[in-house]
Amino acid sequence: MDKQLFADHLATLCKRYDDILEQCGFDTLNVFSGAPSVQFLDDNYYPFRVNPQFKALVPVTDNPHSWVIYRRGQKPKLLFYRPVDFWHYVPPAPQTFWSDEYDIELLAKPDEAKAYLTGENAAFIGEAARFDGWEIGQRNPQHLIAQLHWARAYKTPYEFTCLREANRIAVRAHQAAEEAFRAGASEFEINLAYLKAAGQGENQMPYGNIIGLNEHGAILHYTHLSTEPLPESERRSFLIDAGADCNGYCADITRSYAYREGEFAELVSAMHDKEQELVAGLTPGASYVELHKSCHQKIGQLLQQFGVIKTSPESAVESGLTRTFMPHGLGHFLGLQVHDVGGHQTAPEGGTTPPPAEYPFLRTTRTIEENQVFTIEPGLYFIDSLLGELKESQLADEVNWDKVEKLRPFGGVRIEDNVIVHADHVENMTRDCYGN
Amino acid sequence: MDKQLFADHLATLCKRYDDILEQCGFDTLNVFSGAPSVQFLDDNYYPFRVNPQFKALVPVTDNPHSWVIYRRGQKPKLLFYRPVDFWHYVPPAPQTFWSDEYDIELLAKPDEAKAYLTGENAAFIGEAARFDGWEIGQRNPQHLIAQLHWARAYKTPYEFTCLREANRIAVRAHQAAEEAFRAGASEFEINLAYLKAAGQGENQMPYGNIIGLNEHGAILHYTHLSTEPLPESERRSFLIDAGADCNGYCADITRSYAYREGEFAELVSAMHDKEQELVAGLTPGASYVELHKSCHQKIGQLLQQFGVIKTSPESAVESGLTRTFMPHGLGHFLGLQVHDVGGHQTAPEGGTTPPPAEYPFLRTTRTIEENQVFTIEPGLYFIDSLLGELKESQLADEVNWDKVEKLRPFGGVRIEDNVIVHADHVENMTRDCYGN
Ligand SMILES: [Mn+2]
Ligand SMILES: [Mn+2]
Ligand SMILES: [Mn+2]
Ligand SMILES: [Mn+2]
Ligand code: NI
Ligand code: NI
Repeated sequence: MDKQLFADHLATLCKRYDDILEQCGFDTLNVFSGAPSVQFLDDNYYPFRVNPQFKALVPVTDNPHSWVIYRRGQKPKLLFYRPVDFWHYVPPAPQTFWSDEYDIELLAKPDEAKAYLTGENAAFIGEAARFDGWEIGQRNPQHLIAQLHWARAYKTPYEFTCLREANRIAVRAHQAAEEAFRAGASEFEINLAYLKAAGQGENQMPYGNIIGLNEHGAILHYTHLSTEPLPESERRSFLIDAGADCNGYCADITRSYAYREGEFAELVSAMHDKEQELVAGLTPGASYVELHKSCHQKIGQLLQQFGVIKTSPESAVESGLTRTFMPHGLGHFLGLQVHDVGGHQTAPEGGTTPPPAEYPFLRTTRTIEENQVFTIEPGLYFIDSLLGELKESQLADEVNWDKVEKLRPFGGVRIEDNVIVHADHVENMTRDCYGN
Repeated sequence: MDKQLFADHLATLCKRYDDILEQCGFDTLNVFSGAPSVQFLDDNYYPFRVNPQFKALVPVTDNPHSWVIYRRGQKPKLLFYRPVDFWHYVPPAPQTFWSDEYDIELLAKPDEAKAYLTGENAAFIGEAARFDGWEIGQRNPQHLIAQLHWARAYKTPYEFTCLREANRIAVRAHQAAEEAFRAGASEFEINLAYLKAAGQGENQMPYGNIIGLNEHGAILHYTHLSTEPLPESERRSFLIDAGADCNGYCADITRSYAYREGEFAELVSAMHDKEQELVAGLTPGASYVELHKSCHQKIGQLLQQFGVIKTSPESAVESGLTRTFMPHGLGHFLGLQVHDVGGHQTAPEGGTTPPPAEYPFLRTTRTIEENQVFTIEPGLYFIDSLLGELKESQLADEVNWDKVEKLRPFGGVRIEDNVIVHADHVENMTRDCYGN
């Protein structure tokens, strides 16, 4: 990573933090990286997951008991935990592209942090339970967190670089996963092929990989990973939604595959086209909610084109019929968190803009702006429980149930790319990695 | 799994629970399976880990929001969570070797449990935070938990069967890992080869796999998993401590390998012999603490035999010299938890027997008895920080530092087997799987 790119990023961050802290009435911000939790009645721990507000300030994702102390107008201080411990791996003291930008102190014990912390005009962000009696400032003030969340929607060039690299890693892994699918691997084995190609473990992934063969593609968050391989004759379809990490930034990519030529293969191909039309709709000033609505029009078009419904796309959107086939939202902000923060914020100072009542799962209601990063992820699924409800409803007659039965064994299709909104064009990081 | 074997197991359990509940003054025991925790400021969850006291009553390890309600003298009731949810995979209603033994109710929503629970003369075991205001009985009473923990040291034939199967899975995976090591795989890739052969994912393992090449073998809980493969000339040694799960029961096996013939290979081989002598020492009525002490004698013998120390084994144990090379304990109870509970208990009614002051990490101080299951895991390591302390101490002259430098690049060696203590013999489940 280029040192200057990071230095510029941190300069932008510092300006933001200076302004926001001043507005919120704080001089100092103490951010704790976190600590692993022990399992109930056991001596094993849950995997460590870093406080996202910590990795927002420094690209360290794997070190508990560490702190960033940010004082307005000063070089940020990093308290980096580095115990003398013959039981566990201890990371080396940082000496890399970002380390010059921090005043670094090493902590041999978690409690040594106390000497560096102040509660005076200070705010604290982190899990506070272990700090009873510590002077660390006001704990997790919501108005401060809201401002920081709002600002995170606008990415810097360094952040673009990290997101592109996360996409590069994930696309390489998606290609390995497709290969494993075509070779007859089980869901469990496909996941291992993915992790191997990514060079990242299950607990380094930004979210639990969704890897579904056949009907499992219809379970939106299917993370069960069956170990049963399918005989060749039973292989129909494959849906994979899986990401990767680069310096704490996430990729979040979905691909769907047909095992054979035929109607489902055509549906996958048609969905690729619709998805690219939606990506092209990410223009500064446009409304993400409107883009979601136009996605439902396109789902209606596909349903009509493939003979699943007997009505027009317009009527299917109007009646709510398309919602049976695509119950989730068009996409979300992407960044340090896979569902990056702030998608429902009305303004930096506060307020929430909920999604329209008929689309409760839409994660983004903000106006699309330059330097924002989104996923675009239209989908079309044959979901037993929702089809069951539909069959009992007044809309049942508008559906071609023979066609539903024909497509149901394929589960569903989703295509998801990661996109940067620039002033005069959109950058599809995902397709750039595929070379198309 | 044989139905009758499980039925007999549950009959034994019911007798135990009836006695213990009566002694502790309860009629009803409500045990909650647990629920995944959300990550700080995020909408992702930590992996689900079942309450060990839940899986002690029913072989279900992957279903949150479920309950066992145990009433003295009655068939246990299982509240099995099975929501209507198009987002997530929902397990089928249980119909397997254990399901006839429970009165099973399906819960569509977590709160439906309320209707089945009573607080009257009841105890609750589980994470209580989400049950404010629920009538579930006395929360996690320590005297009850202590009695249940004590009893878990005595395994039933069904439990032996599960532990043997966990060993079978783990040994198969250890063999795949050795193959990957010899083929030049990185630690990260060796781990994936292990998981693939086990057919179990990272979060299904009973503990974080320890996979260390060369010097990494000296970090006792090394779980870092480097993605760097080593060139052939730099491959020296491989230590792997990894388990597997069967119906909630754990394997916990360590093997060490030399890449080439030579002194370290001889040390590994000699450690196998010492380990088997120690396994043979697991006789009913013997003291695990004394067995740990005899382990230190054997480590002293190896240190002398390989020329690492200049003194006698006896003197090396006496002076504490052997503790630099084996800082951990000889082993621990094994069962539903990898460090199974109750190893320091003095009596079922209470009291703790700490390990001797010079061996603070020894996990078992109870008398060895029939039907107990242990790990035996002697080790010998070259640990930088401990060798540094030794070099500064009065014992420095007793060490052959040239030999230390020669062996240090190999990290260390540990051999760990899983053993059942029978009345008249020990059963080494691990070596039975290796066929030797
Ligand atoms: Mn996704
Ligand atoms: Mn997404
Ligand atoms: Mn072990
Ligand atoms: Mn062990
Ligand atoms: Ni989910
Ligand atoms: Ni540890």
